[in-house]
Amino acid sequence: MSKVHSDTIRPIRFAKGQLQLLDQRRLPQETLWQTYDAAPAVAEAIRDMVVRGAPAIGITAAFGVALACQRAQGHDDWRARVTGDVETLRGARPTAVNLFWALDRMQAEVTASASAEAAVAATTAAAQRMLDADIAGNRNMGALGAELIEPGRGVLTHCNTGSLATGGYGTALGVIRAAWDASRIEEVFADETRPWLQGSRLTAWELVHDGIPVQVLCEGAAASLLRSGRIGWVIVGADRIAANGDTANKIGTYGLAVLARAHGVRFMVAAPVATIDFDMPNGDGIPIEQRGEDEVLALGGQRVAADGARGFNPAFDVTPADLIDAIVTESGVVEAPTMERLAVLREPAETGSLV
Amino acid sequence: MSKVHSDTIRPIRFAKGQLQLLDQRRLPQETLWQTYDAAPAVAEAIRDMVVRGAPAIGITAAFGVALACQRAQGHDDWRARVTGDVETLRGARPTAVNLFWALDRMQAEVTASASAEAAVAATTAAAQRMLDADIAGNRNMGALGAELIEPGRGVLTHCNTGSLATGGYGTALGVIRAAWDASRIEEVFADETRPWLQGSRLTAWELVHDGIPVQVLCEGAAASLLRSGRIGWVIVGADRIAANGDTANKIGTYGLAVLARAHGVRFMVAAPVATIDFDMPNGDGIPIEQRGEDEVLALGGQRVAADGARGFNPAFDVTPADLIDAIVTESGVVEAPTMERLAVLREPAETGSLV
Repeated sequence: MSKVHSDTIRPIRFAKGQLQLLDQRRLPQETLWQTYDAAPAVAEAIRDMVVRGAPAIGITAAFGVALACQRAQGHDDWRARVTGDVETLRGARPTAVNLFWALDRMQAEVTASASAEAAVAATTAAAQRMLDADIAGNRNMGALGAELIEPGRGVLTHCNTGSLATGGYGTALGVIRAAWDASRIEEVFADETRPWLQGSRLTAWELVHDGIPVQVLCEGAAASLLRSGRIGWVIVGADRIAANGDTANKIGTYGLAVLARAHGVRFMVAAPVATIDFDMPNGDGIPIEQRGEDEVLALGGQRVAADGARGFNPAFDVTPADLIDAIVTESGVVEAPTMERLAVLREPAETGSLV
Repeated sequence: MSKVHSDTIRPIRFAKGQLQLLDQRRLPQETLWQTYDAAPAVAEAIRDMVVRGAPAIGITAAFGVALACQRAQGHDDWRARVTGDVETLRGARPTAVNLFWALDRMQAEVTASASAEAAVAATTAAAQRMLDADIAGNRNMGALGAELIEPGRGVLTHCNTGSLATGGYGTALGVIRAAWDASRIEEVFADETRPWLQGSRLTAWELVHDGIPVQVLCEGAAASLLRSGRIGWVIVGADRIAANGDTANKIGTYGLAVLARAHGVRFMVAAPVATIDFDMPNGDGIPIEQRGEDEVLALGGQRVAADGARGFNPAFDVTPADLIDAIVTESGVVEAPTMERLAVLREPAETGSLV
C-alpha cells in the first residue's frame, strides 16, 4: 500500500473568489460540491454540518472571513461589515475551539490591513496557509502517532477525523493512515457514530476510497470488541482540549475511554495544537452543544420513535485527561497529559508558526 | 398514574387454533398482526424478528409446538412430525435459552400424550399457562425490582424488555413500570439500541402508549448520562444467565455495566428463572449470535456505509456477574450474584411450578 494511495481526499477548495465544500451530509451516496461567496452562508453550512470536524470548521471559517472581506470591498464601513460577519461565523457552533482560534487569527489579519483590498489579499492568503499547514501538520501528526503503535493488533476509531474533518489526511484517521502504511496495524474498526453516522458514512467512505479495509460497528459493540484483545489502541480526534488535557470530542468518546482503560487498551487523542484551549483550565468549562431531538428520534428524515418520546442529544462529551494515554499533535506527543506537560506545546502556536 | 394504565400491550395471542404475533419490525409506524398455523413459519418469524425478546421467543415457540401437534393430527407418524418441528423451532435463534427451556417443556407434554389429539390439548394448554405465568411472574418481578430502587433519581434501560419482549408487562421494563407507578423513579431514559433500534422503536412506543415519559438517547451518550448523577440504576433484561450470574443480553449491555460501575450507578438484570441456564457454568460458553453485516451497514433498507466496508455485528454480549448488583426474578432477588446464591432459584423451576 503506497503512502500516496491512502490520502486522496480534499474537502475544502478555494478558487476564483469562491469557497467550495464537499457536502458531507450527502456522502457516501452522492459527491456534491456546494459553493459559497458570502460569510453568513458559510456560517449556515457549518451549523448545518455541510462541513464538520474541528479543524475543517476552523479552515472553512477562515475562508468565510476572506469572503467577508471580498463582499465588504467598496464600502466605507468595510471593517465593521467584516467584523459583523466574523461574529456570525463565531456563533455557528460552540464546542470546537478551532473555530474561534481561526477567527481570531483572521481578525488580526483584517485589523492589520489598511484597506478592504489589502484585507482580501491578506485573509485569502492566511486561510490558504492555514489549510496547507493543516495538511502538513496532519502528516507530521500521523507519523508521530504511528510511532506509538506497537505492531500486531487492530485499532478502533470514533466519528470521522479524516480528510473530511480537516484540510486533508486527518488527525486520528491520519495516524491510522500512517500506521497502516507502516504496517503497524492489523485491522481498522470504526464506530458508526450515531446520531450522524459520521463513522459509517464518512470514515468508511474515506478508508474504502483509499484502499484501507474497515469494519463498521454500532457503538454498543465496542465493549465486546475491546474485551476481545483485538484492539491495541482507541484513536480519536478532539473538538477542544483544555489546558490540563481534558478533551471534548464527539459524543461517545468518553465512554470509549472508560472502556479502553477497563480493558487495558490504550487511548490516543490526535489533534492540532490549535485544538488546545490554553485559557480553559479543565473540561468542566467546555460548552457542550445540545443538538435537536430529531437527530435521535428520526433516521434519514423518517420519524422512528413514537410521537411523544423525547430525545437526549448532547453532541459532545468530555474525557478526563487521566483516561488519555497520549495526546498527539503536529508539534509533538504528550503522554499521560497534565497541564505542565501540555504547556510545552504552547509556544509555537503563539509565535504563529503554525499558520 | 394508575397501575392499570401502565400495562396495556399484549403481543402474543392464540385463538381458534391460530397464533397471532404483533409484527415488531413494523412498530411504531404500523400495528400489524401476523397469523401463523404451522411451526416452520413460526420459526421463521422468530429468526426474522417479527417477535423478539427472550421470554416472548419462548412463549411463541411453545405455541409453535401446539401448531405442530395440530398439523400432525391424522398422521400415523404424528410424533415424529412434531419432533421435527420442535427441532426446526430449536434452530431459530441460538442465544436466548428461554427458547430451549420452553421447547423442552413442550416436548415433555408431547411425550406424555397418548394421541395427537391429546397432544394438541396438552400443548395448547401448556403454552397458554406459560403465557399467563409469564405475565404474572413479570408483575411479581416488577414489584421485587421496584423495591430495590431508592426514590429520587432516573433509570436507564437498553433494548426492549417490555410487554413486547414477553407475554406482557415486561422484565426490566416491568420493573420500570412498577417503580414508576410507585413514584420511585424521576425519569426514564432508553438507549435507542442499534442496530435494530428496539429502544427507539419499541420501548419508547410502549412507554408513550402507557403514559410514562421517556427520553431516547444514542448509546454513545450513555456515559455522559451516567456521569451526570441523574441515574440511580441501569436496568436490563437477559437472554441467558449462566449458573454463576454471567449474563448474555443485547449487544451494548456489557458496556453499560462497565460504565455503571465506573460511575457508582447500580446495575440490575431482570429476567424470569427460565432465563437462567443452570447447565452453563459461566458466560464463556454462551453462544453469541452473529447477525448479518447489513444490519449495521444499512438503515431502513438503504445502504449507508460505502460499498466495500464490512460490518461487525454480534447481537449479544456477556456481562460478568461481578458487574451485576442484582438479578431480579419472579421468584426472588439475588444481590451480588454467585453460583451459590443463584442456586436457591433452581428448585421451583425444576418442580415445574412456573409453568
